[in-house]
Amino acid sequence: MPFPDLVHPLLDAYESSVVTPADFAQFWQSTLAESRAVGGRMQMVAAETTLKLVDVFDVTFPGFGGHPVKGWLVLPRERASKLPLLVQYVGYGGGRGFPHELLHWAASGFAYFRMDTRGQGSSWSTGATPDPVGSTSQIPGMMTKGVLDRNDYYYRRVFTDGVRAIDALAELDFVDSDRIAVCGGSQGGGISLAVAGIENRVKAVMPDVPFLCDFPRAVRMAARDPYLEIVRFLAQHREKREMVFETLRYFDGVCFARQSQAAALYSVALMDDICPASTVYAAYRAHAGEDKSVVEYEFNNHEGGGPYQDRQQMTWLTERFGMVG
Amino acid sequence: MPFPDLVHPLLDAYESSVVTPADFAQFWQSTLAESRAVGGRMQMVAAETTLKLVDVFDVTFPGFGGHPVKGWLVLPRERASKLPLLVQYVGYGGGRGFPHELLHWAASGFAYFRMDTRGQGSSWSTGATPDPVGSTSQIPGMMTKGVLDRNDYYYRRVFTDGVRAIDALAELDFVDSDRIAVCGGSQGGGISLAVAGIENRVKAVMPDVPFLCDFPRAVRMAARDPYLEIVRFLAQHREKREMVFETLRYFDGVCFARQSQAAALYSVALMDDICPASTVYAAYRAHAGEDKSVVEYEFNNHEGGGPYQDRQQMTWLTERFGMVG
Amino acid sequence: MPFPDLVHPLLDAYESSVVTPADFAQFWQSTLAESRAVGGRMQMVAAETTLKLVDVFDVTFPGFGGHPVKGWLVLPRERASKLPLLVQYVGYGGGRGFPHELLHWAASGFAYFRMDTRGQGSSWSTGATPDPVGSTSQIPGMMTKGVLDRNDYYYRRVFTDGVRAIDALAELDFVDSDRIAVCGGSQGGGISLAVAGIENRVKAVMPDVPFLCDFPRAVRMAARDPYLEIVRFLAQHREKREMVFETLRYFDGVCFARQSQAAALYSVALMDDICPASTVYAAYRAHAGEDKSVVEYEFNNHEGGGPYQDRQQMTWLTERFGMVG
Amino acid sequence: MPFPDLVHPLLDAYESSVVTPADFAQFWQSTLAESRAVGGRMQMVAAETTLKLVDVFDVTFPGFGGHPVKGWLVLPRERASKLPLLVQYVGYGGGRGFPHELLHWAASGFAYFRMDTRGQGSSWSTGATPDPVGSTSQIPGMMTKGVLDRNDYYYRRVFTDGVRAIDALAELDFVDSDRIAVCGGSQGGGISLAVAGIENRVKAVMPDVPFLCDFPRAVRMAARDPYLEIVRFLAQHREKREMVFETLRYFDGVCFARQSQAAALYSVALMDDICPASTVYAAYRAHAGEDKSVVEYEFNNHEGGGPYQDRQQMTWLTERFGMVG
Amino acid sequence: MPFPDLVHPLLDAYESSVVTPADFAQFWQSTLAESRAVGGRMQMVAAETTLKLVDVFDVTFPGFGGHPVKGWLVLPRERASKLPLLVQYVGYGGGRGFPHELLHWAASGFAYFRMDTRGQGSSWSTGATPDPVGSTSQIPGMMTKGVLDRNDYYYRRVFTDGVRAIDALAELDFVDSDRIAVCGGSQGGGISLAVAGIENRVKAVMPDVPFLCDFPRAVRMAARDPYLEIVRFLAQHREKREMVFETLRYFDGVCFARQSQAAALYSVALMDDICPASTVYAAYRAHAGEDKSVVEYEFNNHEGGGPYQDRQQMTWLTERFGMVG
Amino acid sequence: MPFPDLVHPLLDAYESSVVTPADFAQFWQSTLAESRAVGGRMQMVAAETTLKLVDVFDVTFPGFGGHPVKGWLVLPRERASKLPLLVQYVGYGGGRGFPHELLHWAASGFAYFRMDTRGQGSSWSTGATPDPVGSTSQIPGMMTKGVLDRNDYYYRRVFTDGVRAIDALAELDFVDSDRIAVCGGSQGGGISLAVAGIENRVKAVMPDVPFLCDFPRAVRMAARDPYLEIVRFLAQHREKREMVFETLRYFDGVCFARQSQAAALYSVALMDDICPASTVYAAYRAHAGEDKSVVEYEFNNHEGGGPYQDRQQMTWLTERFGMVG
Repeated sequence: MPFPDLVHPLLDAYESSVVTPADFAQFWQSTLAESRAVGGRMQMVAAETTLKLVDVFDVTFPGFGGHPVKGWLVLPRERASKLPLLVQYVGYGGGRGFPHELLHWAASGFAYFRMDTRGQGSSWSTGATPDPVGSTSQIPGMMTKGVLDRNDYYYRRVFTDGVRAIDALAELDFVDSDRIAVCGGSQGGGISLAVAGIENRVKAVMPDVPFLCDFPRAVRMAARDPYLEIVRFLAQHREKREMVFETLRYFDGVCFARQSQAAALYSVALMDDICPASTVYAAYRAHAGEDKSVVEYEFNNHEGGGPYQDRQQMTWLTERFGMVG
Repeated sequence: MPFPDLVHPLLDAYESSVVTPADFAQFWQSTLAESRAVGGRMQMVAAETTLKLVDVFDVTFPGFGGHPVKGWLVLPRERASKLPLLVQYVGYGGGRGFPHELLHWAASGFAYFRMDTRGQGSSWSTGATPDPVGSTSQIPGMMTKGVLDRNDYYYRRVFTDGVRAIDALAELDFVDSDRIAVCGGSQGGGISLAVAGIENRVKAVMPDVPFLCDFPRAVRMAARDPYLEIVRFLAQHREKREMVFETLRYFDGVCFARQSQAAALYSVALMDDICPASTVYAAYRAHAGEDKSVVEYEFNNHEGGGPYQDRQQMTWLTERFGMVG
Repeated sequence: MPFPDLVHPLLDAYESSVVTPADFAQFWQSTLAESRAVGGRMQMVAAETTLKLVDVFDVTFPGFGGHPVKGWLVLPRERASKLPLLVQYVGYGGGRGFPHELLHWAASGFAYFRMDTRGQGSSWSTGATPDPVGSTSQIPGMMTKGVLDRNDYYYRRVFTDGVRAIDALAELDFVDSDRIAVCGGSQGGGISLAVAGIENRVKAVMPDVPFLCDFPRAVRMAARDPYLEIVRFLAQHREKREMVFETLRYFDGVCFARQSQAAALYSVALMDDICPASTVYAAYRAHAGEDKSVVEYEFNNHEGGGPYQDRQQMTWLTERFGMVG
Repeated sequence: MPFPDLVHPLLDAYESSVVTPADFAQFWQSTLAESRAVGGRMQMVAAETTLKLVDVFDVTFPGFGGHPVKGWLVLPRERASKLPLLVQYVGYGGGRGFPHELLHWAASGFAYFRMDTRGQGSSWSTGATPDPVGSTSQIPGMMTKGVLDRNDYYYRRVFTDGVRAIDALAELDFVDSDRIAVCGGSQGGGISLAVAGIENRVKAVMPDVPFLCDFPRAVRMAARDPYLEIVRFLAQHREKREMVFETLRYFDGVCFARQSQAAALYSVALMDDICPASTVYAAYRAHAGEDKSVVEYEFNNHEGGGPYQDRQQMTWLTERFGMVG
Repeated sequence: MPFPDLVHPLLDAYESSVVTPADFAQFWQSTLAESRAVGGRMQMVAAETTLKLVDVFDVTFPGFGGHPVKGWLVLPRERASKLPLLVQYVGYGGGRGFPHELLHWAASGFAYFRMDTRGQGSSWSTGATPDPVGSTSQIPGMMTKGVLDRNDYYYRRVFTDGVRAIDALAELDFVDSDRIAVCGGSQGGGISLAVAGIENRVKAVMPDVPFLCDFPRAVRMAARDPYLEIVRFLAQHREKREMVFETLRYFDGVCFARQSQAAALYSVALMDDICPASTVYAAYRAHAGEDKSVVEYEFNNHEGGGPYQDRQQMTWLTERFGMVG
Repeated sequence: MPFPDLVHPLLDAYESSVVTPADFAQFWQSTLAESRAVGGRMQMVAAETTLKLVDVFDVTFPGFGGHPVKGWLVLPRERASKLPLLVQYVGYGGGRGFPHELLHWAASGFAYFRMDTRGQGSSWSTGATPDPVGSTSQIPGMMTKGVLDRNDYYYRRVFTDGVRAIDALAELDFVDSDRIAVCGGSQGGGISLAVAGIENRVKAVMPDVPFLCDFPRAVRMAARDPYLEIVRFLAQHREKREMVFETLRYFDGVCFARQSQAAALYSVALMDDICPASTVYAAYRAHAGEDKSVVEYEFNNHEGGGPYQDRQQMTWLTERFGMVG
């Protein structure tokens, strides 16, 4: 099976050519400040399920622009002390689904929150969060929605939602705000990198085969969607290449990693033709925090480590958060 | 090549089961009234091209909600008298493209207008018109954008744009408002059916392998996108079937055809697996106007008659508009 | 999306032409008796995980011929009384995976057991159970392994394993042997039908888009593997058609359903081209038990109801087993 | 695996709607007369191979218009008496290949001749025979080469070559001209039907999943090439449908079968999506000769019976030609 | 999207290894001389269309060997002075289509001629010109038709047709024979390169993602047809490699470019897997004329610049031919 | 057509990194000794066919563990002296088929034996030999059957069968045991390499595009099955990479070639994406015997030389075995 990207040792030598914009930090600070200023109220409604070992809440919190964003909060029914918080962002096209779909974090003693991705949630799991913002001409999907202006770009809203989720949940009395972690696979990994880059209350980040990293290389190496939405856009709008890549710099996981101090557990798959290995390593190498490691899966495509990596994450995070034994 | 839908004589016997909603006409009247009330100004800017035989204008007119919608207006440079107007709507994913791309109508003596489809125009030709309205969770593309509520549905805005284009162009002093026709292939055919069903200034309509007809059958017979966006949506949101089909009734070409008095030249292709033949015949049979005919292409898929049908349209329309000789 | 099989009302009229062999019950009684005579010991080893709300055991029990078969047993750590038992069999190619992968049954108060399928467990989740029996010439996969003789056929061993799992687990002191249910999707659904047909301690069965039903129709209607393994086998061994279908009669879900008195919750998907709808309805209609119902998903392929059906199962079973409130 | 065409009992009821042209026999008589009048000389050159049990000759004989056509003649080195002759025509795209590729007929005591198909022989086996005749606009391949006029149609030349091969070989002193048979798979089956329909010296014909039968149905049922070349031609040349089908009537295996008295062994495959089963049965049912039978392969696509059918043919033909024992 | 060929800077360093045959110029001079000697008469028949701004003529001129070749001539109805001539050759498989299909050159003031490609014109647009010359064994299509002998090769006839079109049209009284240009996309680009290389009356050439360049590299880099016809031919006729490449040297765009003094506007697409970028650059770099430029489309496959390049061509050529303002 | 592996001159420089295990020779000696110790009896039954020039025997001989293995023995009916023996092993998925399918070796004067591959023989030709040994969890197919332990690995049994065939046949009184050769394509080539590496009575080996060579590179370069079965296995069993490659060292064609003194005629295809060229050259270069040559097919995929290579083999082997003239 030919590898779709560099392999070792060339892979080790690769570094992203993405330059962090001078006003990168400021762009995100003002973006966040704007949405925080709008404010809004969080709602938590207990959900009816057959689950007896956990409590489930249907949460709505104010995201970008105060827009309501949904998520499931699942936590052990019996809880002696404050719980560490793990926020998971989901992969491209999916939504928060049903609360019974993913229970291993709550069963391990975490307050676990799975956030909807606005406007997504119809392709492989269901979501319930609108993206109440329109777009100029775009390729179907999210990658080129508003891509001609960094202020209009779809992921500006999503990354802000990701931070605002933490704003909302850190306040809850059963949450230990000193032990906050974020994770996610693919797009969820990309969002978690962004959130861990913007928000320093995040102590640990676990990007699993992350998407949204090193865009200039990614769109030229990926063999399958969704990076190719950008290629198809440029194949039509042939004159807008510079404009598009200029926007994407503000949303590149490599730039977020460069300013993240969170402990990090990355994963990467060498046969991944959706999120090419070099783009993941580009972020990993750039990661500022010193406690970082990466798990490599040589013979996997974008499914990566799957349950192996889940297990790895559970071990790694419970250690870091002092939950062992 | 097995036919993907009914063939004759079963095809002849087929009738759509779609019931026109009782408030169908009223829904569209109030929709239009609303956007007309918002108003807005049309802009016409002469475009620079190498074309010497025609004049080209870059037009922006107020569409649904007063949103600016673009189109190219192309007309013979030498014009002795008022010109008949032909408005063309474009196929799914495309935009108005470049003015030099389609000149046969202007070269035949028409004021020819090719309208952008809002938010589209990145997939096979370029567009320049935003759709400044967001969406709940949807499948990438346009078919399920806002589909849970007829007031939010994407095509409510598009069909209104289609009528508002005529509002704007019929006023121009070189346009003969007694000779207005609309046409389009696939999605363009669906839009033209809607416009000819709502707006009785339209004297002739030429739906070419039209899309957006007889939704309940179409989603169950089409083998390729875009009808299947609806199938994929329902495959996730399993509980929303009734809601979705209730919305779609207000946008069904069959219902528009039932109230259209325009002369009509349809085309249909029997191997079409995007817009199945029965769904086109369903609209054709339902068409209220008496001057109607359909050209059938037995061995074609969705490309239909292509330039054969163009030629047929040119002959048919110049006859009806007294332009022969 | 054209339906790959009959739709209503033709679907309602369909009945399987499979004739239950006269010695069907006897074949299975003697098969079971044989393996029970071999006997063997069950082993339960507590597994180390980060999971705090549940106990996990790595179970090995004696299956067909006394061969060791693996499974994960997961149950609430806190348990006041005996627990109802739910045994899940897994889909084609998969194995028991990791214990953290599926927790919603244990979290709902069940002793939950996920059984390995012998020889499988390398295609989409991992297994750890050998099938220590060889084969004559076969198509890669399991469908034609030993298919020329009912005593050699692969599923004779698997279905026996399925019953022997219950033999082993029903003995455990924390299990309430009056409340035993089985479930599974696809192949897992087929195995659960077989077990519920053979073993009357099973009080409830939940076959989700079940496989292994109505073979003669299935191999002629399915458009994708694994039923097509049989087609490919017959495409080579052209003279063995009668022999193959004679064997398959002893393994047909329709025959098992005819003798099952368990309460049943089926699911079926009308766009399923792996397990065609008529073959599922064939089993459902044949089901002998009176408390039976089926959930139909019109716009789904073989993914069926997915988490919707999980939720349905959780509600349905907790009601039947008196676990509500 | 859904069947691509009718199954029993509907299959039994099917009859072709092709009407044999009134001047069909005359067309072929004059065609043959013309080429026989041109004449030409046969050449036989002994070929060098390692084969010791057979003699191999590289034959060139005058075909349609006297054009040189190649074939391999292979026969037992030791021969006591005159040999029965078997002529094989090859499948679409192939050529006569190498003499060592197919030896079972010579090894069974036949003078075996494998004829090149003019202009073919580059796709799956090599040929060495030109088709020195040009064409009007056509789809790549042979199916639409000259299809607008029955005198220009490619298969007029090929079928004539097929008869002229027999003209040439029947004269050889080691050939028993009372025992001449023809065979072939797919296109070779179609050619053999034509030759057996035109030339009554042919005593036995063995069309194996024959092509070129019942064109009007075939082009509408086949899912794969080469019948679809005709569909693609008509998809462009939309106005030429009648003209094309008028030509094809003169080349339809059904018409040839109606006038063939040769003993016949057909084969047919029910999952054949290149040569649909109904088109083969159409020819079989129409076959005039009384000694006819058909072998049906239910679970095969166009590979049909493969070596099973070879064996069947060897048994069937050696019986008919008194070669047993 | 991985690039199917070299990218910069390696792309810049690439040079074709094709050696121009010593008798290349002579081969083409004698070829042309031969066909000119045969002569023949041009016919122009006014075509009936609805087009009012242009005149349309159905032209037949004597091509290679005097064979009749068709084309549409379209020119402004009102014409004050002699018109520059633009001849367009069309892409592989297509024909001249309908006169209304491409009007932007005539609308820009050119006498525009679209030439049929002999024997083609059934795959994506219709043609009406036969290729009355047969072939030895070949792969379906045109690439290997007569490829074993440079005198028989199909493109010898086509390139000659291309020059003979100019012979015919340059004589017309409304044509300014000092302003002759040729263009075409893909195969049309290859033909235009050949014509501009042979015939020095051609003042400008606009090869758009040209085909038929640098054969030895092209057949080893292209991932899709039609270059792969040659690969498939050689995959069967394994012993004919040298012979085939020897023929192709006489038809290589690189060799034509080396002797062309025409002003040139090339286009190239870096994701083109039909006409790989290096093969286009090979011709561009070799182009002898000093006024040359190339437009590069990074994110396009073989569609290249499409209407962007049309617009570029219109601007570039009207400037060079003094038609601005 | 891009080459899926290295081309010259890089191809020439490639050497496999596989290290022959220290106990390689011993592993195979003891394996063979074990099976020889079990013993068993060969059976030869004359088969009824129509073939008159050859005798055919249905042979069953004791293979690995004494398991019965089938094959066809075909030899000239008239035989003056002892015959050289050629044993052919068949490609992946196939079986010995029918005796009439391959006659060119017997027709050239050889005692020709085509051996079944145990458990295979349902995919493209039929086999009749069981593999009476089970497996741990594996990917459907043979490549990972028992791959976790070199003693359980499927090919340990197959390669032993290959040698045991020679044990059995060399004893026959009409066989000249000084002239024994082996051959095979793809998997058959891999088996022939193994047999020629283990058993020095084999004087000549003709591996045609051999499989099972240089595993570490092969699984990383092959684009299609069956090497990818190993990739899919490792994609699930992510922790077993070392274990798998450790097993495979004992079955690598490179290691067998290193100890084979047989004269060798290899073939290799540069566009082969099943058995990449570098893996074949790796074995060829490593081949210890001095009389070795390789035929290269540049434009072929895994079909390689096909009948060209057959012809080459017939010439090469009859020369070496003194059978010319």
